[in-house]
Amino acid sequence: MVASSAPDLTDPRYRAAIIDLLGAIGYGEISACERLTEDAGRAPQLADKVALLGLASAQFAKVAPILDQLAALGVEPYEAMEPFRAPIDQFHEYTAPSDWWESLVKAYVGDNLVRDFYREFAVYLDPTTQALITSTLAEDRSEFVVERVRAGIAADHTRAGRLALWGRRIMGEALTQTQRVAAERDALSDILAGDVLAALDLATIADVFGRITQNHIRRMAALGLEH
Amino acid sequence: MVASSAPDLTDPRYRAAIIDLLGAIGYGEISACERLTEDAGRAPQLADKVALLGLASAQFAKVAPILDQLAALGVEPYEAMEPFRAPIDQFHEYTAPSDWWESLVKAYVGDNLVRDFYREFAVYLDPTTQALITSTLAEDRSEFVVERVRAGIAADHTRAGRLALWGRRIMGEALTQTQRVAAERDALSDILAGDVLAALDLATIADVFGRITQNHIRRMAALGLEH
Repeated sequence: MVASSAPDLTDPRYRAAIIDLLGAIGYGEISACERLTEDAGRAPQLADKVALLGLASAQFAKVAPILDQLAALGVEPYEAMEPFRAPIDQFHEYTAPSDWWESLVKAYVGDNLVRDFYREFAVYLDPTTQALITSTLAEDRSEFVVERVRAGIAADHTRAGRLALWGRRIMGEALTQTQRVAAERDALSDILAGDVLAALDLATIADVFGRITQNHIRRMAALGLEH
Repeated sequence: MVASSAPDLTDPRYRAAIIDLLGAIGYGEISACERLTEDAGRAPQLADKVALLGLASAQFAKVAPILDQLAALGVEPYEAMEPFRAPIDQFHEYTAPSDWWESLVKAYVGDNLVRDFYREFAVYLDPTTQALITSTLAEDRSEFVVERVRAGIAADHTRAGRLALWGRRIMGEALTQTQRVAAERDALSDILAGDVLAALDLATIADVFGRITQNHIRRMAALGLEH
């Protein structure tokens, strides 16, 4: 099979992959908004609650452009999201925070993993999709978490070990569900096997995941946590 | 006591009343954002979930200007909200929806009660506060509920009686908690007794609540519900 070299939304296989990708991103954002708001309910202080609601609201603001673009691609946006509900809900079920500290770490680690993922893969996509995805990266509101978590660990050192394991679990679940989705959805596995996008061969993908993992480790260190 | 005639933020008693009012509005919006998101979790369809998350996000967007104005008035915004947490949380506790239909009716009735309340009272306030409060009224996103509830009743007529009682309970709890807050907070009871704002005498306040109640009854009818 000859791999097409330039990503082009008129190519039905590439288009199917992008519809899947946007469906997954869209439901991911809806779901993140709900979970972050749930997490905000655990905030000990009103200021922290509002900071987390701010993250949730920023996630929600990204949903409408995704819905619009899915409609522009000729699909019913919510139908395009449907295949990704189960794996994304499962990710959240398996990483349900049991207290405020776990909520904070999940918000920070999860938000940044998603941002890294978008940043790394967007460059391989067509200009329309690339612009849509990078527009969601403009604002980073999660930095307040670093100070909070460091203060929390300073106040109680036993939190460090537990939260380090927690961060590792979030990363692990994120990778597991991503791989599961990629394997189950033909449109996505085609793209990830370099069949649709020549530039995205397996070596490149391995590099990308390597960088995402390195960034994750750096962020855990910033929180004062070992990976 | 001579009632001052023009509302003026440099008057300490009026200023104290406005700080209370903005504190109550601010926490009300934070709380509404959380509850609407919780309600969104009961939506049977993704489109409905997103519509309710849209209401939640619109509530959250109103929080930052309130925080800014409280800070401009020289108080710690979250401290100003603190006295209103218990009554507002209690309102939500006593009106916790048990299913999607109750969530929808609460979103619609609650959102519009608050809008009516702001619209009616804003005209008596100083221009700065008035502009802040009316700016939160610009957008009405809750109209989608009317169609949903009418369709829900058409599909199952037994819902009508239950939801009519439910709407009455929300209205009743809202009035109860508002009166409780007004009675407990001296700064607010002063304003509501015409001591601080000459224009707001008891007869005027009775008229205002009369109009709010009439609007509520009209909206219940629009939903296909008797009051």
